[in-house]
Amino acid sequence: MTPEKNILIGIDIGGTNVRAGAVTAQGELLNWRDAKIEADRGPDFGLNVIVDLVENVVTEAGLSVAALGIGSTGPLDRERGCIQNPYTLPGWEDVDIVTPLRERFGVPVALENDADAASLGEAWVGAGRGFKSMVMFTIGTGVGFALIKDGEIHRGVNREHPEGGHILIDPEGPECYCGTNGCLESLVAGPALAAFARSAAQENPGSYLSGVPGAPENLEARDIFEGARMGDGVCLELVDQTAGYIARGLISILMMILPEAIVLTGGVLRSFDLMEKRIRLELKKVDIIIPAGNVHLQMSKTGQHAGLLGAARAAQLLLEK
Amino acid sequence: MTPEKNILIGIDIGGTNVRAGAVTAQGELLNWRDAKIEADRGPDFGLNVIVDLVENVVTEAGLSVAALGIGSTGPLDRERGCIQNPYTLPGWEDVDIVTPLRERFGVPVALENDADAASLGEAWVGAGRGFKSMVMFTIGTGVGFALIKDGEIHRGVNREHPEGGHILIDPEGPECYCGTNGCLESLVAGPALAAFARSAAQENPGSYLSGVPGAPENLEARDIFEGARMGDGVCLELVDQTAGYIARGLISILMMILPEAIVLTGGVLRSFDLMEKRIRLELKKVDIIIPAGNVHLQMSKTGQHAGLLGAARAAQLLLEK
Repeated sequence: MTPEKNILIGIDIGGTNVRAGAVTAQGELLNWRDAKIEADRGPDFGLNVIVDLVENVVTEAGLSVAALGIGSTGPLDRERGCIQNPYTLPGWEDVDIVTPLRERFGVPVALENDADAASLGEAWVGAGRGFKSMVMFTIGTGVGFALIKDGEIHRGVNREHPEGGHILIDPEGPECYCGTNGCLESLVAGPALAAFARSAAQENPGSYLSGVPGAPENLEARDIFEGARMGDGVCLELVDQTAGYIARGLISILMMILPEAIVLTGGVLRSFDLMEKRIRLELKKVDIIIPAGNVHLQMSKTGQHAGLLGAARAAQLLLEK
Repeated sequence: MTPEKNILIGIDIGGTNVRAGAVTAQGELLNWRDAKIEADRGPDFGLNVIVDLVENVVTEAGLSVAALGIGSTGPLDRERGCIQNPYTLPGWEDVDIVTPLRERFGVPVALENDADAASLGEAWVGAGRGFKSMVMFTIGTGVGFALIKDGEIHRGVNREHPEGGHILIDPEGPECYCGTNGCLESLVAGPALAAFARSAAQENPGSYLSGVPGAPENLEARDIFEGARMGDGVCLELVDQTAGYIARGLISILMMILPEAIVLTGGVLRSFDLMEKRIRLELKKVDIIIPAGNVHLQMSKTGQHAGLLGAARAAQLLLEK
């Protein structure tokens, strides 16, 4: 493709919004737009929203399109180009998203799940840029994980993506929907932290957490971090516990993959600053057998555009194949 | 290389013996020999042993040599082609093994650590053959781990190899030389099992373990498995505990990498048959979020020749570069 004349279009499909952007071959975002996907109005309506969005973005950019990439909330059937998601996109069961866009725009269309697309974006032009191997590590409502090796997404058996957020941490830990107990997600994801906050509020009637309006029922992970910033002892203990679990998760990633970079993202990791000292202290301990200190551990840089940029990169990789 | 006329030479250097073999481009071992390396007589003596061994193997095979590969006990400096191992090869500190062999035989020479070489052999012509991604998982005196992806060894930052044997399993587990505690090696490697056996013998004076000659001081991992085969309750419990830890380690590997195949090897895993039922039961539980049941989990097939075959494969990969 000629970078001056053609653009890549990245499309980021979430449960509520869809965003499209025009991206150069070098990963520069020229312009973008978003819209409500209104999943309850069905896939035909949603597809029209996406087509309109892409047409507007292309018109604004004033360039022709080389390829389209989609990063979508899952589960997906990548081989068939289908979104199969009755949970976050109700009514969108087994919807072929690739064929209509390919036919409408006459260019190749790539499809990746949203976590993989975000990782690809971060590896391309974000905090993972220039590294041969990068792990993108997300802690939010769930715990996500993607390995990018030599610029491409690592895929597992059946070309499915692994679920590194469920590596096992503590044999005494809580049960998880993954089928076992004490996995990382069961200990540090938003809902897990909210449950710890509720228990702590009940056990400590005079504490910061018990005084949060709506406590204990409405306590969220963020309440722990807010309390910790105000110096509350119970919250500081929960933050320390969380940092310890995250550190053990990161050590397992280092021991198994030893990537050149680990990029952190997600709502819980927005409070990484509160946990960083403890986490780096724990990682330093394993320097004795692996060069943990040489692994770049940092926050993501592409932020809200990670998925869109990664979708554009997936489109570019498709052209190179 | 023309397979009919040229052979690859694989060399497997251990602390006691060195073995060399002639291998075809298709991975068939034509002939092999071994010799004592007598590390205490120094690297010059050892190098002569290796050169003689290779010459004999080449003469017997009656073919010319395309390339040599070495799989050696570590640590190594692969970039400089040096063995740096005062522990298992006393006197061999910082010995350039690649240059003398390259000059003597006039062909390219590859150097890999022994675990990586064995994994490469297993992926090439063993139980990992035909899979896009394979993890070789060794439990013996230590716990080892290597990921082969698209036929090549996965390397970490600084091109160093990860230490997957030290993924963290139990925050309450024993301390390990890796700098943390409760890693897989601290719970299931031979010395860890021997320590569990000693404690169990002392706590259960009438048990099978307490009756082993030399118990408790001389108890080894194998005594646990022997007792279990005879139906001893204490040993069966220790086997079940070990199977549980190994299963949690395997689940973390599946969650993080989801390889197409996991190949098992090493002294402790020779008793895999005693643990297989429990391990497969645990793995089945995570089928709910990853296709664990589609991952081929089996014992290694290349056995004692894994290192030699993998060294030959490393030589072949060097030719292809």
